[in-house]
Amino acid sequence: MATDSRMLCTALRNRLMSAADAAALIPAGSTVGMSGFTGAGYPKAIPAALAERIEQLNNAGEEFRINVWTGASTAPELDGKLAAVNGINMRLPFQSDPICREKINNGSMDYIDIHLSEVSQYAWSGFLGKMNIAVIEVSGVLEDGRLIPSSAVGNNKTWIEQADQVILEVNSAQSAGLEGMHDIYYGTALPPYRKPIMISQPTDRIGEHYLHCPADKIIAIVETSAPDRNSPFNPPDDISRRIASHILQFFQQEIAIGRMPKELLPIQSGVGNIPNAVLEGLDAGPFKQLSAFTEVIQDGMLAMLKSGTLTAASSTAFSLSPTAMAELNTNIDFYRQRIILRQQDISNHPELIRRLGVIAMNGLIEADIYGNVNSTHIMGSRMMNGIGGSGDFARNGYLSIFVTPSTAKNGAISAIVPMVSHVDHTEHDVKILVTEHGLADLRGLSPKQRAHQIIQKCADPAFRPALMDYFERACASGRGMHTPHLLGEALSWHQRYEATGHM
Amino acid sequence: MATDSRMLCTALRNRLMSAADAAALIPAGSTVGMSGFTGAGYPKAIPAALAERIEQLNNAGEEFRINVWTGASTAPELDGKLAAVNGINMRLPFQSDPICREKINNGSMDYIDIHLSEVSQYAWSGFLGKMNIAVIEVSGVLEDGRLIPSSAVGNNKTWIEQADQVILEVNSAQSAGLEGMHDIYYGTALPPYRKPIMISQPTDRIGEHYLHCPADKIIAIVETSAPDRNSPFNPPDDISRRIASHILQFFQQEIAIGRMPKELLPIQSGVGNIPNAVLEGLDAGPFKQLSAFTEVIQDGMLAMLKSGTLTAASSTAFSLSPTAMAELNTNIDFYRQRIILRQQDISNHPELIRRLGVIAMNGLIEADIYGNVNSTHIMGSRMMNGIGGSGDFARNGYLSIFVTPSTAKNGAISAIVPMVSHVDHTEHDVKILVTEHGLADLRGLSPKQRAHQIIQKCADPAFRPALMDYFERACASGRGMHTPHLLGEALSWHQRYEATGHM
Repeated sequence: MATDSRMLCTALRNRLMSAADAAALIPAGSTVGMSGFTGAGYPKAIPAALAERIEQLNNAGEEFRINVWTGASTAPELDGKLAAVNGINMRLPFQSDPICREKINNGSMDYIDIHLSEVSQYAWSGFLGKMNIAVIEVSGVLEDGRLIPSSAVGNNKTWIEQADQVILEVNSAQSAGLEGMHDIYYGTALPPYRKPIMISQPTDRIGEHYLHCPADKIIAIVETSAPDRNSPFNPPDDISRRIASHILQFFQQEIAIGRMPKELLPIQSGVGNIPNAVLEGLDAGPFKQLSAFTEVIQDGMLAMLKSGTLTAASSTAFSLSPTAMAELNTNIDFYRQRIILRQQDISNHPELIRRLGVIAMNGLIEADIYGNVNSTHIMGSRMMNGIGGSGDFARNGYLSIFVTPSTAKNGAISAIVPMVSHVDHTEHDVKILVTEHGLADLRGLSPKQRAHQIIQKCADPAFRPALMDYFERACASGRGMHTPHLLGEALSWHQRYEATGHM
Repeated sequence: MATDSRMLCTALRNRLMSAADAAALIPAGSTVGMSGFTGAGYPKAIPAALAERIEQLNNAGEEFRINVWTGASTAPELDGKLAAVNGINMRLPFQSDPICREKINNGSMDYIDIHLSEVSQYAWSGFLGKMNIAVIEVSGVLEDGRLIPSSAVGNNKTWIEQADQVILEVNSAQSAGLEGMHDIYYGTALPPYRKPIMISQPTDRIGEHYLHCPADKIIAIVETSAPDRNSPFNPPDDISRRIASHILQFFQQEIAIGRMPKELLPIQSGVGNIPNAVLEGLDAGPFKQLSAFTEVIQDGMLAMLKSGTLTAASSTAFSLSPTAMAELNTNIDFYRQRIILRQQDISNHPELIRRLGVIAMNGLIEADIYGNVNSTHIMGSRMMNGIGGSGDFARNGYLSIFVTPSTAKNGAISAIVPMVSHVDHTEHDVKILVTEHGLADLRGLSPKQRAHQIIQKCADPAFRPALMDYFERACASGRGMHTPHLLGEALSWHQRYEATGHM
């Protein structure tokens, strides 16, 4: 053990081994629960070692595949490497890896994308079958065996409880100052034994700082020292800034007419450049004393904490650029007083999202003129990433805001279409839609009223006439007038794009 | 006041008047919150009197329309009469009236169908605009002015609080024994002031028996004596019985493998002949000590309470046949010990549905091969009834079961289609799909695996080859293989039905 070792439990020293030796303990066909949420806190060494082993077996003509369950997305070192050697049979509940995505879309990998709040309940209830092994990154092991969680909690509590055997990666590159930031709640149960979860503010703590794992479950411990994925964000462009400004203006109006407190309500923000830009916009705006109840803390939210715009953030993971990660580590004592990392069945819990009245802000792939949103499927069939936590937050939040540039592929694709090619968020769950052109407030509107708002406020001007033409002809078609559609044309924009490269 | 009057508050006697006089107090253009949920507890006299007034004005060339908000569906005396004279401008959040439906679908009435749990929050937060008048049926007014709720609570608490003025209908035809059955919770708040709702069992009471209304808000009281809609149910047919038997067998398997307690978990059942048949099946099965946490108590559930299969039921309304209503009234003391009627923001609350682990059973219009469900739109455009509480229960329940005969219109329509023409429940929220042919357990399956299950287990044999043909050609199309679709054919079954009368 190196002198800077975070593995302080002498009783577990005999489980220390190399990543290759630990990977060799994972049998073919097993279901493996791995840590990791939005590129944070995933195991850095064992998946790669396992992929190497799989590749050797493949070269020898042997197949070796496992089922991989995580918190959410991981990184090239995990999803990328295992997918590249066709090592994943079934993947859930979320991924965003290019190689993984290609395997899913060429039909060689099964994938189930699940509301992130539900994964733990599914696993506990046995709906997904048995978990054999958990591979969990922690940032330290105390002398008494308690585990200091890493930069993401995700489903780690559940995986450790549900797996027959546990392998730990102890990553000394994670800040030692993470200790004390987490709130691991051991009060969950299956029905009929569930009790109210006593959180009434994002800052309420109901658990403990550490994960527990019976020592006899731990079959291997691997020491690592490697950073998280830490992808940089693009600086906000003009489109992002315009989207952010529409949202800021909307919040100010809502406050002015008394429909929102001046501290707003706890915000949730999806991951990506546009949500990040909205956060930057919020930080530059007139708001003070905000809070966040979210699943991911990205650069914009860290900056809001630093500036004092945001007083506190509850999350299950970080997703930071290298610069922001350095800032977090440098001032970890400051952030530890303001950040709580929870397991994802709590960070995304419908009970809490509803109670706290979260303002949910998420991206999308396309929306239709009636306000249905597709968050997952390109042209109806190709999986992009997955629904993630967007359904947890959009359905139960106080406000659900969906943001998107009005076009993609240099204007070839309209983000507003006659009918979405896949639905992840129904018209019932989409309250506000925003593009760089404007904000459509869909609350209290019937479908036809929504269509007018969405086309006029959100669609790109180049596509507006064709959308209005579709809508007007649908209204005149003599079919049902509640949600007028021309079934033969409803998906024609997607077909046209596939045939011609332009909608 | 008649001697059998239920209006015992002497201070309010001067507000007693005829239905016509009360209806005259409702101004044109106003937003009126009416009581009523699934044909129970709706005002019996004032809507008809108002419709008469509107008809006279219409005949004189004057337009008169109001916005009508309710708990859920009402009856011909309310929705039917007002819709028939074009008296409704905007209707929400649910209806099932044939005349109303026709107006919605011919474009002369705006309609917003909203998750029933959310309506109260929407109204409180001001998202839907101002409510001018509430017209609420109660089953009695105590001497001190407290109101005994009727056979449905619905949104009555919220309407009374939100409306500027309140008109009461005091219906002496409702059983006097309803007094004490209700649990009206006055602890709700808007965020950031919400607290945990301390219900951990369907039988937990957290409120009081009465509704409150400041006396100075009450502008009229009308005494009525008329029964609820009380539509008869069809006796279960062979198809319903087969659907029920699949569900019973499934429950027994789940219990056998330890995934469900032998008392199951609290059940929710949608309204209609098939859900009612499932309840009858449950009652005839081996189950004991069941409970219900639902929005409607229909005949089957009443019978289960009588037989002892069901120990208790929490609901917001009744929807009974005349025979069952007579049984309820005859043995009201027995049922009052076993039934709790709550406001719909509690009966349908995501927090409680998730905590209690409700088994949600709901009907549908069509499902697609990947498990997306359309509950509302005929051929994508014509509104049938609305999503009602199905989204509240399916999204947050422990199990979401959707039931349907495999065909409609004498076999002309397949309930299983390549792509649904409207989505109310996404693939993420549909766990079990049942037709008379079998039960598809979709938990833990990827989209393509789901397609095999749904086509083989649920589709009518007459449509199976065409569904498999679509699926196989979609898989071979070279488009995305996660959710394979042929966009040009995805809605062709609906188009074919409209063109030829057969899918």
